Amino acid sequence: MKSRAAPWALAWRPVCSACAPSRQFSNSSRRRVIRPITELPDCIRPAFLQRQDATLLSLQWPSPPRNILIAKKKRTPGITDSLIEYATHLSATYPSINIIVEPESAREIHETVPFSVYTYEPAPPNGVPAHLSSKTDLVCTLGGDGTILRASSLFSQSPSAPPILSFAMGTIGFLGEWKFNEYKRAFREVYMSGASDAYAKLEFPDRPRPPSAPRSTSDPLDHPLSYDDIRGKAMGSSRTARVLLRNRLRVGVFGPDGARINSSTDQDTYALNEVIVHRGASPHLKIVDVFVGGRFLTEGVADGMIISSPTGSTAYSLSSGGSIVHPLVPSLLLTPICPRSLSFRPLVLPANTPITLRLGEKNRGREVEVSIDGKRISGGMGVGMEVRVLGEEVRNEAGEWCGGVPSIVRGTSGMEDKEDDHWVGGLNALLKFNYPFGDQDADGRRG
Amino acid sequence: MKSRAAPWALAWRPVCSACAPSRQFSNSSRRRVIRPITELPDCIRPAFLQRQDATLLSLQWPSPPRNILIAKKKRTPGITDSLIEYATHLSATYPSINIIVEPESAREIHETVPFSVYTYEPAPPNGVPAHLSSKTDLVCTLGGDGTILRASSLFSQSPSAPPILSFAMGTIGFLGEWKFNEYKRAFREVYMSGASDAYAKLEFPDRPRPPSAPRSTSDPLDHPLSYDDIRGKAMGSSRTARVLLRNRLRVGVFGPDGARINSSTDQDTYALNEVIVHRGASPHLKIVDVFVGGRFLTEGVADGMIISSPTGSTAYSLSSGGSIVHPLVPSLLLTPICPRSLSFRPLVLPANTPITLRLGEKNRGREVEVSIDGKRISGGMGVGMEVRVLGEEVRNEAGEWCGGVPSIVRGTSGMEDKEDDHWVGGLNALLKFNYPFGDQDADGRRG
Amino acid sequence: MKSRAAPWALAWRPVCSACAPSRQFSNSSRRRVIRPITELPDCIRPAFLQRQDATLLSLQWPSPPRNILIAKKKRTPGITDSLIEYATHLSATYPSINIIVEPESAREIHETVPFSVYTYEPAPPNGVPAHLSSKTDLVCTLGGDGTILRASSLFSQSPSAPPILSFAMGTIGFLGEWKFNEYKRAFREVYMSGASDAYAKLEFPDRPRPPSAPRSTSDPLDHPLSYDDIRGKAMGSSRTARVLLRNRLRVGVFGPDGARINSSTDQDTYALNEVIVHRGASPHLKIVDVFVGGRFLTEGVADGMIISSPTGSTAYSLSSGGSIVHPLVPSLLLTPICPRSLSFRPLVLPANTPITLRLGEKNRGREVEVSIDGKRISGGMGVGMEVRVLGEEVRNEAGEWCGGVPSIVRGTSGMEDKEDDHWVGGLNALLKFNYPFGDQDADGRRG
Amino acid sequence: MKSRAAPWALAWRPVCSACAPSRQFSNSSRRRVIRPITELPDCIRPAFLQRQDATLLSLQWPSPPRNILIAKKKRTPGITDSLIEYATHLSATYPSINIIVEPESAREIHETVPFSVYTYEPAPPNGVPAHLSSKTDLVCTLGGDGTILRASSLFSQSPSAPPILSFAMGTIGFLGEWKFNEYKRAFREVYMSGASDAYAKLEFPDRPRPPSAPRSTSDPLDHPLSYDDIRGKAMGSSRTARVLLRNRLRVGVFGPDGARINSSTDQDTYALNEVIVHRGASPHLKIVDVFVGGRFLTEGVADGMIISSPTGSTAYSLSSGGSIVHPLVPSLLLTPICPRSLSFRPLVLPANTPITLRLGEKNRGREVEVSIDGKRISGGMGVGMEVRVLGEEVRNEAGEWCGGVPSIVRGTSGMEDKEDDHWVGGLNALLKFNYPFGDQDADGRRG
Repeated sequence: MKSRAAPWALAWRPVCSACAPSRQFSNSSRRRVIRPITELPDCIRPAFLQRQDATLLSLQWPSPPRNILIAKKKRTPGITDSLIEYATHLSATYPSINIIVEPESAREIHETVPFSVYTYEPAPPNGVPAHLSSKTDLVCTLGGDGTILRASSLFSQSPSAPPILSFAMGTIGFLGEWKFNEYKRAFREVYMSGASDAYAKLEFPDRPRPPSAPRSTSDPLDHPLSYDDIRGKAMGSSRTARVLLRNRLRVGVFGPDGARINSSTDQDTYALNEVIVHRGASPHLKIVDVFVGGRFLTEGVADGMIISSPTGSTAYSLSSGGSIVHPLVPSLLLTPICPRSLSFRPLVLPANTPITLRLGEKNRGREVEVSIDGKRISGGMGVGMEVRVLGEEVRNEAGEWCGGVPSIVRGTSGMEDKEDDHWVGGLNALLKFNYPFGDQDADGRRG
Repeated sequence: MKSRAAPWALAWRPVCSACAPSRQFSNSSRRRVIRPITELPDCIRPAFLQRQDATLLSLQWPSPPRNILIAKKKRTPGITDSLIEYATHLSATYPSINIIVEPESAREIHETVPFSVYTYEPAPPNGVPAHLSSKTDLVCTLGGDGTILRASSLFSQSPSAPPILSFAMGTIGFLGEWKFNEYKRAFREVYMSGASDAYAKLEFPDRPRPPSAPRSTSDPLDHPLSYDDIRGKAMGSSRTARVLLRNRLRVGVFGPDGARINSSTDQDTYALNEVIVHRGASPHLKIVDVFVGGRFLTEGVADGMIISSPTGSTAYSLSSGGSIVHPLVPSLLLTPICPRSLSFRPLVLPANTPITLRLGEKNRGREVEVSIDGKRISGGMGVGMEVRVLGEEVRNEAGEWCGGVPSIVRGTSGMEDKEDDHWVGGLNALLKFNYPFGDQDADGRRG
Repeated sequence: MKSRAAPWALAWRPVCSACAPSRQFSNSSRRRVIRPITELPDCIRPAFLQRQDATLLSLQWPSPPRNILIAKKKRTPGITDSLIEYATHLSATYPSINIIVEPESAREIHETVPFSVYTYEPAPPNGVPAHLSSKTDLVCTLGGDGTILRASSLFSQSPSAPPILSFAMGTIGFLGEWKFNEYKRAFREVYMSGASDAYAKLEFPDRPRPPSAPRSTSDPLDHPLSYDDIRGKAMGSSRTARVLLRNRLRVGVFGPDGARINSSTDQDTYALNEVIVHRGASPHLKIVDVFVGGRFLTEGVADGMIISSPTGSTAYSLSSGGSIVHPLVPSLLLTPICPRSLSFRPLVLPANTPITLRLGEKNRGREVEVSIDGKRISGGMGVGMEVRVLGEEVRNEAGEWCGGVPSIVRGTSGMEDKEDDHWVGGLNALLKFNYPFGDQDADGRRG
Repeated sequence: MKSRAAPWALAWRPVCSACAPSRQFSNSSRRRVIRPITELPDCIRPAFLQRQDATLLSLQWPSPPRNILIAKKKRTPGITDSLIEYATHLSATYPSINIIVEPESAREIHETVPFSVYTYEPAPPNGVPAHLSSKTDLVCTLGGDGTILRASSLFSQSPSAPPILSFAMGTIGFLGEWKFNEYKRAFREVYMSGASDAYAKLEFPDRPRPPSAPRSTSDPLDHPLSYDDIRGKAMGSSRTARVLLRNRLRVGVFGPDGARINSSTDQDTYALNEVIVHRGASPHLKIVDVFVGGRFLTEGVADGMIISSPTGSTAYSLSSGGSIVHPLVPSLLLTPICPRSLSFRPLVLPANTPITLRLGEKNRGREVEVSIDGKRISGGMGVGMEVRVLGEEVRNEAGEWCGGVPSIVRGTSGMEDKEDDHWVGGLNALLKFNYPFGDQDADGRRG
């Protein structure tokens, strides 16, 4: 970013001079090339501002986002069409935007769409795709919680993930906020978020607007967005996109020899939901020593053990009997999986207390499975291995919000000024929380 | 019954000579009298036959039922109208039938309906209404589980309750089976149940039929049922009403001095759902010694303790964390209410094992509440008191089915020959059993 | 049995004439041979008599047991010494007894002990050892519940298992009853169980007693047991060994093509504890359709599903949140493992209601694990497979007790005439059932 | 405090000139007077300093504490003797200390002890004792959690409670830390806590030391503490008493008319454990509307509802199925009591999110019980009433720790420098957390 004098201005220029002229206007086959993300400009990192009397944060871009990663759910009919529709809209409406897709998607769509798509090399074992973290401004997901989780995992070795704008595609999830048919408004809201009056004063080069292709639609959200569109049209701070900054877990997995297993770069892995130790295919219960704050807490004999973030409290932990914890409670959950104990009630621990799970000597065999957000760690497991977890810090020393997974929260129409009920809504809609049973007969008595 | 030479024949005679002539034909005020059930003939007890390869029993009347108790839900708008509609239908269609209602209902409706209603004296404390058990052939309830429970409590000091035909009135319950708009078919099915060809051969006195009033309806179920209607029209054994014989609990409550409290007649009380010991208004946990099969099991320190039948497993016990037990599992459930223990998992015990709850010396104060099927036992509680419970026997020494609460089960249309799914249906419809949560996203993974 | 005219008499003869003379007296190497169980006489099946007012049964041998299988816990220091001690005691004290051990044990001990040991060929996949079921009179286990489970699995394709006399070896279990240091008394009690006065009247051949080797011990339980020991010393019916007849599950596992997988002999497998369907190494939740009594109950989305016997209710099912069910409640437990539902409460169903688990079309991949009493079924799993379960019948049409796993229950000293508390004791000792938490302070209040 | 120029110096003077001379030396009856706490100097409020890399705080007195409230468990044999022993030690060893006891205790002991005791007027309904909060420097409790809860309730209308030093008296609790036989060391540690070198430089008036009475004991903790004892003997910052600042709930209870019920002074009540809404003696389930952050969450139909602090998570909430939450997780727990729902899983919510429970129109009758830390609110309950709860702030705007209930934590001998394990220890010792069940047999398998 430092080398770019006027990022906002540059945003309107073609990403690279070679492909730019043809971008919107020609039909040449060149645009159908799959291009590496290394060609993209470095990412733009937004700020997250505390709003008065609010638990959600305001998203503020220093300049408009350009590099947009779109991840879609797998094995779902029709989803590729939605991806194409969405990407095409972005490309047509926001000419400065570059579309990044997963390698598989790139192969699927690059010959169909009238613009270049960017992609990355697949991740190495226990790793993440190179450069993706430093090139992505914003992530959009088309799918459910599983897709969000997978997208978030792409940034699992980075101390901060880009904001995520997620569209549920029929499969409503706990994390996803928007309906796909809202995508134009949703993206516009995010794109413009935090554009202050100062934006309008930026000196834009006197370049011609992209020609407005004749359009049948009168939807203003379909019009290409140019300088004029922005000048004087700042949404104002009350119209910024609202962000739930989800804390992640910082996870280190270490082999019996003390060597780090979870990544090849000696870094912690960040988990949005949970880390799991499980017997997997082994018929034998695992015997896991649990340490909290450096002190021995208990020896868990169980199918497995879950350390979950509050975000993950409605996932595997819930299936295993854990409480539901609001994502803004700074905490870690320790939930046993089928423990051989009547009295291993799930625990909720402070986020800043390190928890260690150690596979003790009593275990038979070396088989154990360790998964982080559904991705299995490969290699090196066995007696003596340790999983070390700590809650991620989401404020730096200067008190600024950072880190975590910034999730764009859908505003309730007409209630933009009020704290929203997305979590409450999720409880009711998704968990069928507190569905009453039995007779509503007022004669019913307890005593 | 023994004193009645030809019950079936007599069924067509007026219940008592005084009121009979006016019954269907006059408008005299005499019929609006509330009459005591002591004037009714003794009850007719049906047999319950085991059907081949079936878990439900077949209801078989030795002669048609005459004395029908109708209980309705309290405090419900419109319910009295339904009661009147139902009672009037029965009275018009089955001239030999006598309608019994609860005292409060009798006062409500007796001036409205064109026939006499029978009722009984209210029950004394810890008691049941006198004579009701020996006079009632069949119980019909209009309401939910609470109403069934209340109706069943009227027979709680009798080793066998009459069959119960229950209509849900909007408030679907676990025990109720029929929709109110099915009442004509439902009652006809029960009334005719088990009428064998032999019925047709009974020598009926040569009496004139009740005149058929001109009717606008063509519904055959509205036609008065006479000898001709029955002759040769036996429903056959496959068309009998199907009965789920619900085991009850036999409960004795004894004061610190060993004197029986639960009833004044030194009899056990039969509970359809459960007996509860609870701290009630006392702020202090109760300390309850639990004995199983005469041996000390454990000291429960809790808000209270539930001993439930399988039928009651979907009531208070479920709220307290108990398992769901099918009504045909011969068992008792011991479920603590908010125990001060992480390891007091609910227990399922054999129905023929006596359980005793004793309020030990450690308890402070005398306050404790004991309720049987929602009716509180009054008087005499305190340290040293005992609740003794045993599952009711539902087969006598001759192997015949008896006792319990015979619940008429609704046949699924077109599936009369198959075992029905009323319990399974109840689980799904009422408990919202196993409603899935979270993301249906196929990307979701556990490891 | 049929070919043996006088089994009781023959019991005192050597098992085969070849090895007999040397049996107790010589040091020849011949006795150290491992012999096949096919050489053994057919097994003797005891009767189980209902005792008045008792829930346990009385064991009654038609003639003394001869073929004794001893199974020991694996991987446990010192356990082989205990096996040798026990087997040697039996062989020395009860000359007519033949010792069967598992193949691994046979190799371990046959050169050490002064008598021949019998063993069998290892079981084929999904099978049981040939002939074992038809040759074993009594099983003794040295170990915990795991050992009992393994021993019981050896008879898992037989409609009745031999009685099991189990000795806990330090590791107290739920199923094990006796302490190892009681073995002499325990075995004598079982051996003599049901020996009526009629035994004394049997015509024994006039053979010399085995010479009493000079012994340093004065323990009468060490003296070789001969005719004189039995004559007139019947223990009487009140002294018979008491048996808890544990119901098992009858389990059939069928592949997508309808072919039976659980055994090669087209027979059901009998499970003492449970059958489990589990995702195993697959990261994907399993989607299991549950049918009860032939009707669809629910679609379980979970790590897995357990169908357990009451005996198994304190094993995996308990870890998964199931209730504790007394072994005498004729029932099956359906307990989900980490279900994706807040409302999949465990169910207790009638033992005679068939339950089917079907792996529906929605499942991804073919991976699923099915285990019966901890033994994994190999091969053929996948979408479309079914697990069909029914509770075992333990009374035949004549009303005689049969089937199940007859577990010899330890009598409480001095309380032989009373129903014992082994299950209650197990709850308290093993589960640490209802251990109270928190402050015992009488100031503690709830309201 | 402001009116007292040199509190530290004054600390050595008699509390009031009248009684001082006779204090330790005479037998005059005057000292046996029960005196009102209004005569006491105003309380001294300690600071709580964050220790580096530590979750516990350091207690720092600006000058030594003088007014010590001692609360004892009720109805416990021998407890009064312990109270006398403890109070006498304090009085003899720390001459400047004034002993406050509860009114009942004052009547019990004032004729026995050789010094005056202070006490207060009993609290009005829904209120707290007048002046107690402004006069108490330190609270000592002799008893279990119930006693701590009761003592803490005495300060339930004050935004900050004095530090609590609690001694378990046989009845180990979750909150209590010290054994009674440690009382001399414990009190010395608290008394001296934070005494910096600066203390030694204070100008003490040149007064004679209290004469050292000849003593048989050589325990230095028994010697009267004087200026010389303190000078140069500061414990240093690493030796300060360690404090767990327990957040409380701020609770307002409002009648149907909106009038505050919980206190007569229009102030919130602070609860250490929980606030409970319960059906109490009413047989009817309560229907409670739950609002979180001002938005409707759900309608709870249940015996009652608990809003608990993390400290209270091991009390009633645990009995009702709540998770165990570490006291340092800033959160509120919403736990239903026996809900009529399979899917009302307990919730953990952010401490700064207001929760409201409202008794809706659907409830029958007016009966409902509301209790705060075990004290029932009297009067005014009924349909329309609301309980409003918010987590207490424990840092003021300047970032200083304040509020809450400062609990003195027992240091583990030899581990004073390490974070201690009091909570972990409590889990294991008190909850019998994670006690394993069943067979430890290594043969045990799951699949």
